[in-house]
Amino acid sequence: MIGVMKGIIKEKPEVGAAYRDNLPVPEVRDNEMLVRVKATAICGTDMHIYNWEKYAQERLKLPMVFGHEFAGDVVKVGSMVKNFKIGDRVAGETHIPCNICYQCQTGNKHICEDMKIIGVHTPGSFAEYISIPEDCAWRLDDSLSYETGSILEPMGVAVHGVLSGEIGGKTIAIYGCGPIGLMAVGTAAACGASQIFAMDVFEKKLEVAKKMRADVVLKSGQDDVVKTVLDATYGRGVDVVLDYSGNAKAIQEGFKILQKGGRFTMVGLPNSPVELDLSESIIYKEAHVNGSTGRLMYETWWQCSELLKSGKLDIKPVIGGIYPIKDYEKAFEALKNGAPGKMIFIP
Amino acid sequence: MIGVMKGIIKEKPEVGAAYRDNLPVPEVRDNEMLVRVKATAICGTDMHIYNWEKYAQERLKLPMVFGHEFAGDVVKVGSMVKNFKIGDRVAGETHIPCNICYQCQTGNKHICEDMKIIGVHTPGSFAEYISIPEDCAWRLDDSLSYETGSILEPMGVAVHGVLSGEIGGKTIAIYGCGPIGLMAVGTAAACGASQIFAMDVFEKKLEVAKKMRADVVLKSGQDDVVKTVLDATYGRGVDVVLDYSGNAKAIQEGFKILQKGGRFTMVGLPNSPVELDLSESIIYKEAHVNGSTGRLMYETWWQCSELLKSGKLDIKPVIGGIYPIKDYEKAFEALKNGAPGKMIFIP
Amino acid sequence: MIGVMKGIIKEKPEVGAAYRDNLPVPEVRDNEMLVRVKATAICGTDMHIYNWEKYAQERLKLPMVFGHEFAGDVVKVGSMVKNFKIGDRVAGETHIPCNICYQCQTGNKHICEDMKIIGVHTPGSFAEYISIPEDCAWRLDDSLSYETGSILEPMGVAVHGVLSGEIGGKTIAIYGCGPIGLMAVGTAAACGASQIFAMDVFEKKLEVAKKMRADVVLKSGQDDVVKTVLDATYGRGVDVVLDYSGNAKAIQEGFKILQKGGRFTMVGLPNSPVELDLSESIIYKEAHVNGSTGRLMYETWWQCSELLKSGKLDIKPVIGGIYPIKDYEKAFEALKNGAPGKMIFIP
Amino acid sequence: MIGVMKGIIKEKPEVGAAYRDNLPVPEVRDNEMLVRVKATAICGTDMHIYNWEKYAQERLKLPMVFGHEFAGDVVKVGSMVKNFKIGDRVAGETHIPCNICYQCQTGNKHICEDMKIIGVHTPGSFAEYISIPEDCAWRLDDSLSYETGSILEPMGVAVHGVLSGEIGGKTIAIYGCGPIGLMAVGTAAACGASQIFAMDVFEKKLEVAKKMRADVVLKSGQDDVVKTVLDATYGRGVDVVLDYSGNAKAIQEGFKILQKGGRFTMVGLPNSPVELDLSESIIYKEAHVNGSTGRLMYETWWQCSELLKSGKLDIKPVIGGIYPIKDYEKAFEALKNGAPGKMIFIP
Repeated sequence: MIGVMKGIIKEKPEVGAAYRDNLPVPEVRDNEMLVRVKATAICGTDMHIYNWEKYAQERLKLPMVFGHEFAGDVVKVGSMVKNFKIGDRVAGETHIPCNICYQCQTGNKHICEDMKIIGVHTPGSFAEYISIPEDCAWRLDDSLSYETGSILEPMGVAVHGVLSGEIGGKTIAIYGCGPIGLMAVGTAAACGASQIFAMDVFEKKLEVAKKMRADVVLKSGQDDVVKTVLDATYGRGVDVVLDYSGNAKAIQEGFKILQKGGRFTMVGLPNSPVELDLSESIIYKEAHVNGSTGRLMYETWWQCSELLKSGKLDIKPVIGGIYPIKDYEKAFEALKNGAPGKMIFIP
Repeated sequence: MIGVMKGIIKEKPEVGAAYRDNLPVPEVRDNEMLVRVKATAICGTDMHIYNWEKYAQERLKLPMVFGHEFAGDVVKVGSMVKNFKIGDRVAGETHIPCNICYQCQTGNKHICEDMKIIGVHTPGSFAEYISIPEDCAWRLDDSLSYETGSILEPMGVAVHGVLSGEIGGKTIAIYGCGPIGLMAVGTAAACGASQIFAMDVFEKKLEVAKKMRADVVLKSGQDDVVKTVLDATYGRGVDVVLDYSGNAKAIQEGFKILQKGGRFTMVGLPNSPVELDLSESIIYKEAHVNGSTGRLMYETWWQCSELLKSGKLDIKPVIGGIYPIKDYEKAFEALKNGAPGKMIFIP
Repeated sequence: MIGVMKGIIKEKPEVGAAYRDNLPVPEVRDNEMLVRVKATAICGTDMHIYNWEKYAQERLKLPMVFGHEFAGDVVKVGSMVKNFKIGDRVAGETHIPCNICYQCQTGNKHICEDMKIIGVHTPGSFAEYISIPEDCAWRLDDSLSYETGSILEPMGVAVHGVLSGEIGGKTIAIYGCGPIGLMAVGTAAACGASQIFAMDVFEKKLEVAKKMRADVVLKSGQDDVVKTVLDATYGRGVDVVLDYSGNAKAIQEGFKILQKGGRFTMVGLPNSPVELDLSESIIYKEAHVNGSTGRLMYETWWQCSELLKSGKLDIKPVIGGIYPIKDYEKAFEALKNGAPGKMIFIP
Repeated sequence: MIGVMKGIIKEKPEVGAAYRDNLPVPEVRDNEMLVRVKATAICGTDMHIYNWEKYAQERLKLPMVFGHEFAGDVVKVGSMVKNFKIGDRVAGETHIPCNICYQCQTGNKHICEDMKIIGVHTPGSFAEYISIPEDCAWRLDDSLSYETGSILEPMGVAVHGVLSGEIGGKTIAIYGCGPIGLMAVGTAAACGASQIFAMDVFEKKLEVAKKMRADVVLKSGQDDVVKTVLDATYGRGVDVVLDYSGNAKAIQEGFKILQKGGRFTMVGLPNSPVELDLSESIIYKEAHVNGSTGRLMYETWWQCSELLKSGKLDIKPVIGGIYPIKDYEKAFEALKNGAPGKMIFIP
């Protein structure tokens, strides 16, 4: 193992990050394995870290390599690793479960009561190497590229939300066409949604939503979403609303287009409280509202893998750009300017 | 059939109501049947009508007999009635479904898109006779009294909420100990809840909650509900929160004592929008929130009947008072003063 | 209304049926409507009647027009019909529910405890006109032809079975490629099944299964189904087995390729008891086995309509032949010889 | 640690077992802990081993200490144990999951594809000490005795079966009143079953079933179970059948008393194939049949603990006898003679 590596590191409590070629390759503990990162993608969380927002200030201890969506090759395994060996291709699960809390004990590791997060609490993937617990590795199917592998983690967020209820033959509204919302559109289409309405404020994102097989795309704040959806659904509204925007107005509007007895799945995280008319939105309607975060470990990963391998779902249109890792500033800049899709680094 | 009857009628758009002994006995259409009311109970809706609040002003056409929770004997049947005959004992379902909308077509008559309500849109039960569609009649088991029969409808609201998810071996918090909340406490206890926390502001209602088998009763605004519940649940919170209060603070507090992955069922109707921290309350927690209104027609009625007949659940402690119908003003007065339990009239 | 009509009638207790041009047009009761049949399809039940098998001998009172899968135009409505008018295009639901039993009361009209069946207990659709209760009419979407309308009823059997559990991202095995099994293949493909294995003994039916988007077709009794399926599913077996064959060997084999915790939905009706190793097939495996019969009234109809209108599913490849009704003998003959797909009459 | 211990060991491939006072205390690996057994119960599996039946012959390598239902104190912990310490009171989970197969990865460790079983594949609990993986330890609540702790494992089998569907307000039939069936009766009663019918061939077991709150007990082969149950359920049959007998006739009869749309949960293991009329028993009825084996790790354990701690359920009537371990032969003898309840050893 070489002792140093290239990577992007958050060194100072300010906007930005630094590219270095002399970072130490991480240690590998008994239950861990070292992965040579072949592709790694930017998450919204990474934007918060790059911009040194409150979320990041409260959590990170600098200096630290960040990034947590990635795929690569196993190059070293700890003594207790049972399920992987050198040479295996893997994608990474971001959540490190404690394995002993109530949630971990009952099949819900993804909402562990004492969760650690890769790239936030432990060194991340924006580098040539990362060391991860065996618990956080997913075997990448031979048919999938490293680039696709690097966005399986956010795809999991999309799939976990979409498949937290019935989709086949149902009408679906999806708010927010960032990468996860876009993959949600594709997942709903692949799983038999009969009509998909996709909403965003950016024209370019709506164009990608069309490629992901949205039936109707609507520009929030411009198109009359409520009227359009009700007109297209016998005046009843959709069976399922999926929010990937975290926007208060979108969420409030979503309940207006939700059918009685319908499902409203919340994935996008609002950054302040949202006012809801619970009587009209939830109670009289007997709505089913569920929060969805992360991905089931590992049922969702199986679902993603099956949908991709079978060709039922193609997520390549969601890739917005692929950059050599040293050009990281261009990728962050593009995202700031509303560029659609996932930005991927090749370290 | 006698041509006139005694009853309480809302005659004028102002607070109060009138007792009359010369009201016309209702007509009976082909799909209807006439019921001699033997017991009829006051619902919160009747309070709104009595007090001539906004809800009532927007809906009622005066003069009108109100009231909709009742039991009695069938004394006349229309030509198309198939399932009942003269002499049958029945309790009344308040909701008159249209039978042709999407919800009616798919097993959800209780959230019919074109619902009519007895005692609001059609003449009610605070009288000697009421005429109801066959759709709204439930055969009263021989083992149940007319008084119990008259509160099966609100019991259904309680049971539908409680049994909209798992209860056996679960910890439960119930906000609001009005009659429905009290019957919810009893239902949860009968169905194997391992710990029941009941909250209200009225001491007297909490005393009845104890009789209904709440394990811990807490006075809202005085006791430290959050600390008490978390301490008693390994710091995790309860599996299920049921809100029968419709109070914004109760709902917000309820999410603080809800376990990750838990269920929050909303039944009580807030009269203004409620601010919720959706990220913490629902999304990170993967909470399941469901609205519950009315009762399943007629699965809930079967459940109520089975629980009562078997003796697993006794709702008599919820009866707060039984009055001759001409003493109706005393009953409304008692409720205004926070008297616990259901008030029943004998017409 | 003309007083006589053309149609196929079972006159005598023997094999065959007669074509007549002087059958009386049916009466229309208050809750019924008269439909001018534009297309009507042959069901397996009609084969039993045509061949005068035990099933038919025990149920039919001759002479009787049979047939029950159809679509047409409403030409007359009874006085109590609320939801349809002359000129409406409709498809027919075969099951006439009693509307008062426990199942009818709890959202399960399709398993009514006192069910009547069109074309078995009441005159059928192999004629120019049929009279049906309003309960048994489904509004046919403008985008769908009468031919498609005439096979919505069996399509409902397929969809009800497939969507009685999760499909998206799951591996599925389907036994029996008669018309219903073929539509099940198409439904599973439309709803995101990641791999579909279809089995039958007839090569021609497997060819249609391919058109309906089966991924792998296997000839029962010739191909090694167990090995093929296990090899393609990591040795674990499929997530879901759907049996539309009713064949004992198929059902026994199905459990061998069912994954632990998987779903086995039985639709095809075995005509004699089947031996099952319950310990291995169901208990140790924690299999979920569910029977599925008919279609939900009317949730399944909505699902069918949505899948067809959206273009997610095309059932035209399942139409095996369209015949003028007077050539009915050719259609029955073709089926007897193993011709694939649905045979439709135009009366 | 003392080097030798007392215990019961299967030394030879024949009926019986030996009591020895010089058995070696087991080694403790890094992920294991040593438990001083304070109470240990006889399972049906132990009877197969004692009687040297086929099940045992195929699996055990002699000599071996057997037994797997137990509770005791932790006296030593391996270096990797995270969640327990010396002095903790624990009960034992019998199933040792592989932690890497698909089932283990998706929240179903209890149906692990590569399961090992304590007391069958590894040394058991009929001794003063047992060494178990941390994965197989459950913290015993202070309010529960070691005797109760020793039968939590079979109680889990009962609870997992009963709570694999709804119970509150439902009618339930339970076949087989061995210890697990008896605890199932108690669980159903605690969770709000409205009527419980319990069947067995032994009078004495039915007497205990009464104590566990069965409403009606029926002697199989003597009482007319089908008529009694149908008469008591409006001719419809029960909502739920639970089979803990594994007896073919019981299972066949169970389907006759199962309501349309009802649930049939199979737990008892038939030792040969069972003939079922699938059309009548499952398909036309739309029955839901599910196999249930072992206990969810660890959701079921939480449920058991909550039901016991809360006092909703008391399983002490199920304890049939408590013996010093050296009197083991008396306990096996009693079971052979049909003595009801669990036999517990104190080592």
